[in-house]
Amino acid sequence: MASFGRWNSLSYAPPASPSAPSLPGRSQNSGPHESSPYPEQLHSSYSRVFPAARPDYYYIQPSFPPGTDLDVIRAFHMVDRDRSGFIDENELRQALCTGYQRFNPRTIRLLMFLFRNPSDPLRVGPKEFAALWSCLKQWRGIFERFDRDRSGKIDLGELRDALYSLGYAVPPSVLQVLISRYDDGSCQRVELNFDSFIECGMILKGLTEKFKEKDKDYTGSATVSYDVFLSMTIPFLVSYN
Amino acid sequence: MASFGRWNSLSYAPPASPSAPSLPGRSQNSGPHESSPYPEQLHSSYSRVFPAARPDYYYIQPSFPPGTDLDVIRAFHMVDRDRSGFIDENELRQALCTGYQRFNPRTIRLLMFLFRNPSDPLRVGPKEFAALWSCLKQWRGIFERFDRDRSGKIDLGELRDALYSLGYAVPPSVLQVLISRYDDGSCQRVELNFDSFIECGMILKGLTEKFKEKDKDYTGSATVSYDVFLSMTIPFLVSYN
Repeated sequence: MASFGRWNSLSYAPPASPSAPSLPGRSQNSGPHESSPYPEQLHSSYSRVFPAARPDYYYIQPSFPPGTDLDVIRAFHMVDRDRSGFIDENELRQALCTGYQRFNPRTIRLLMFLFRNPSDPLRVGPKEFAALWSCLKQWRGIFERFDRDRSGKIDLGELRDALYSLGYAVPPSVLQVLISRYDDGSCQRVELNFDSFIECGMILKGLTEKFKEKDKDYTGSATVSYDVFLSMTIPFLVSYN
Repeated sequence: MASFGRWNSLSYAPPASPSAPSLPGRSQNSGPHESSPYPEQLHSSYSRVFPAARPDYYYIQPSFPPGTDLDVIRAFHMVDRDRSGFIDENELRQALCTGYQRFNPRTIRLLMFLFRNPSDPLRVGPKEFAALWSCLKQWRGIFERFDRDRSGKIDLGELRDALYSLGYAVPPSVLQVLISRYDDGSCQRVELNFDSFIECGMILKGLTEKFKEKDKDYTGSATVSYDVFLSMTIPFLVSYN
């Protein structure tokens, strides 16, 4: 069996607190580069898409976890266009796709699947939205931090380092397979934009969480029956394509 | 851990010989019903799409395993439109989609992934094509056998029995998730056509083979490291969507 290798102690460790990297605006972890290659629009797209909510947005009082950032609550009310108190796939797509950022429908579906409400698997509730939003903010900060050449894309090495900083020590062979889906056959080095970075990261996040459920002591290995193996993987596979 | 339950001894046993159910024409295992509800065109679609090959089709001599059915060799030469000696995704789609049978592009991609040539992952060689073709013939026979009400579709119970006859003892909860992707929200009982049946079956086949690689003694459980778990699942997930 393969081991966790040199990153053993950090493999699938809980990601850092969402509050660690900051977004929008400059990331606190943005590395040695002081100036950013990202247009200001990109940095501030979250706050511009979701301006301060007016009091009359409080059509339904969704129940957010105590201490939820006001920006997240504000964003929720903006995204929840049908005022149902839940976010559906269409609402999430409209919220994430701006003039400055495209998101593949596959990525949106993956986010919906990973952050779905247990009692309503087709929608995201306030609690799940808070987690999703914080996660995206965090990953945006990480993306900007590890895009060392400020190209707006990250390559295989930058992806490896970025995922490692998030607590995922992924074997190079797996990363190679993961990144291969973005190879357009042009023989150029594969690079990921933020959308693809999120997709790769979320695939790893989803599978890692499934594995952790079976490795509660963090031994790095798990014994699973055939039934359990199918139950761990099929929902992920079926819901995300 | 969940066990294999009452189907323990048969769980992920090697599928029956491809020659067991016959296709085209009446299945040898077609159950108590003597007459078929399927139009004759559907039964004979394989042979009509791939008429007897002429000698001049032998542009390249693909290397088939000894004993390969002549029908399979004939089909290969018909499907290999660019005469490359390999079958690509487009060729397979054109071959499988006839006037009587549609195949979702997702299913075609899944078949390409599961039967891909190890040295050329985007194409299927003669050996892999023989396995793919035999598999489809076998599963067509099983589908017809378990479509007991001759509706041209099979429901959850029929799917369970069909998969069991192929050696896959799938927990009901997993089957429910698997079949849920075909729920169109109409509140009607979910039923699968042949295309969807193949997709469900191939998902199970792919995951089961991955698991068997780690459970060579057929104990029903496997111990895997985090790295191995990712390596087992990510290629499947990434290549098939």
